[in-house]
Amino acid sequence: MQATKTRNWNGVIREFQEFLPKVKDDSVVTLREGNTPLIEVLTMGELFERGLKIFLKYEGLNPTGSFKDRGMTMAVSKAKEEGSHAVICASTGNTSAAAAAYAARGGLRAYVLIPEGKIALGKLSQAMMHGAKVVQIQGNFDEALIIVKEVSMMYPVTLVNSINPYRLEGQKTAAFEVCNHLGFAPTYHFLPVGNAGNITAYWRGYKEFKERGVTDSLPKMMGFEAEGSAPIVRGHPIKNPETIASAIRIGNPSSWENAVKAKDESGGIIDMVSDDEIIYAYKLLAREGVFCEPASAASLAGVIKMHKKGIFKNGDTIVCTLTGHGLKDPDTAIKSSDKPITAEPELGKVVELLGF
Amino acid sequence: MQATKTRNWNGVIREFQEFLPKVKDDSVVTLREGNTPLIEVLTMGELFERGLKIFLKYEGLNPTGSFKDRGMTMAVSKAKEEGSHAVICASTGNTSAAAAAYAARGGLRAYVLIPEGKIALGKLSQAMMHGAKVVQIQGNFDEALIIVKEVSMMYPVTLVNSINPYRLEGQKTAAFEVCNHLGFAPTYHFLPVGNAGNITAYWRGYKEFKERGVTDSLPKMMGFEAEGSAPIVRGHPIKNPETIASAIRIGNPSSWENAVKAKDESGGIIDMVSDDEIIYAYKLLAREGVFCEPASAASLAGVIKMHKKGIFKNGDTIVCTLTGHGLKDPDTAIKSSDKPITAEPELGKVVELLGF
Repeated sequence: MQATKTRNWNGVIREFQEFLPKVKDDSVVTLREGNTPLIEVLTMGELFERGLKIFLKYEGLNPTGSFKDRGMTMAVSKAKEEGSHAVICASTGNTSAAAAAYAARGGLRAYVLIPEGKIALGKLSQAMMHGAKVVQIQGNFDEALIIVKEVSMMYPVTLVNSINPYRLEGQKTAAFEVCNHLGFAPTYHFLPVGNAGNITAYWRGYKEFKERGVTDSLPKMMGFEAEGSAPIVRGHPIKNPETIASAIRIGNPSSWENAVKAKDESGGIIDMVSDDEIIYAYKLLAREGVFCEPASAASLAGVIKMHKKGIFKNGDTIVCTLTGHGLKDPDTAIKSSDKPITAEPELGKVVELLGF
Repeated sequence: MQATKTRNWNGVIREFQEFLPKVKDDSVVTLREGNTPLIEVLTMGELFERGLKIFLKYEGLNPTGSFKDRGMTMAVSKAKEEGSHAVICASTGNTSAAAAAYAARGGLRAYVLIPEGKIALGKLSQAMMHGAKVVQIQGNFDEALIIVKEVSMMYPVTLVNSINPYRLEGQKTAAFEVCNHLGFAPTYHFLPVGNAGNITAYWRGYKEFKERGVTDSLPKMMGFEAEGSAPIVRGHPIKNPETIASAIRIGNPSSWENAVKAKDESGGIIDMVSDDEIIYAYKLLAREGVFCEPASAASLAGVIKMHKKGIFKNGDTIVCTLTGHGLKDPDTAIKSSDKPITAEPELGKVVELLGF
């Protein structure tokens, strides 16, 4: 008898090699990242009319719990191929987790700089467990990025922030998967904007699939910054960016120009949402069973904002990228929820508390 | 041009329907769980000889971060099909996270009982965010289980602990995937044993694939309890089980008899490992880039213990189930790692600290 055939996914470098810079097979450093599910939004209460199809690209199911793995497999593999023994990055958390994990996997050392007290607990635990040398900077991401750039120029260590060109190459594979899973390119693609690499990468992926004739249309790229950390929307770098969405707390994005280009070429927008709107969307997603980190919810918050402006038509297909898993930031989840109740292990008391 | 074809995985009920109890399609509650990767162990230093092939079934990449999703999609879908409006469970954390998420997805209420102060932070955040009614019991898992069993008999609420028969049906699909990914059944399958449902479910899955002619051999089932919480090994329930591996801190397992049967029928063993051995394996996995929760590492700790006894032969294929993602328990990760260093955002100081 023939059972459902499933196969072991080979990671984005081996699965999409015809679309990516070549890597020698014995240099490939992979944790079988990618192939994340596209999950349907079911109802969201009365928020959206039924003619609208909204899908969540749930990138939290990558090995280290965020989309960063797609770019990190490329960057660390190329570093290994080129004979590098160490990688370095600045990070709001997800990049450092991915860098630490892939460096460990590939037998390289990892050095990460993070803003002290400003990265979510889960992410810190990852960099530490994977054996990276972690330096907490008494400053913000933008300051840390300046330092790691200089260090990588002075010492034999490969920079794996998204200015490393291989990072965005890997990240564009998420757009390929969206097209493959839907069978076509969506009408709109919504995503959070922090360092602005991901909107750049997705746009590149969508364009390449269209150029090669895999798809015959392109989505409008819809990027959303957090209000307290919205340099592109405001038109100037933000010196002290602030938002609860720590993953996008970035005041001077590396891919600023390319993000604007993605918006312009696709006929999309780059806009912003407030922390309240982000937390509202974050809770809404959890009530549909999908737990993401707060920054991820900026994409759905963007959909809600645009829906109020009436831009969508019946039959439109909308994809929201959820960049990281909710487990990355348990503290914000707990602060956003009702407190548990405590009881003695006694049937009558429990029944009463449960409200039966 | 033809691009690599990837498709959107449909979740275990729809993918393996010929092997599972029937569910009406409009009752299926899914987050597209399953299809988790099988990741090769690369070296583990000098621990293992090269002829041994060890694979990690990385169940932390299910939607809620643990293998429990496979059973919960079945249990909640059947509850919905039967007209139930609420589910209840006792949990050391992973079950409550899955119950809360799938109940939210299906539009059912969830009630969860957890041992106070004894579940990992990530898991607590999940139950809370997904809107479950959470009661922390001043007692242990075993006491909580007795209470929820009684509540489910007295009130209209479906019990979704693993004594719910649909749970293990869903969980057996992990064995199907292992066989599909390898192309054959492994020689040995190692896994942690807590409530003993998973070893029971895997064994059922392996047997069904062989009966239907998909595979032509069966693995030896190798279950490992934690030393301070090892009722099956010691031959009697443990009143106050203790271990750092909170997910398997269970003194009176529901599937005790079936676990022993799986061991006996397969010619395997049920043994135990110490907390030190668990933490050693936990760190070793992270140094290969794979972050799991402490309980998960009991499987690899078991492999190390058996390797010392010399039971493996050249060419043996060993699969270890890693039951949950490391992000479930950030506190244990941080306690098990070197502390980060703190520095002013100044190039010279950072270079010095990094040791260049």
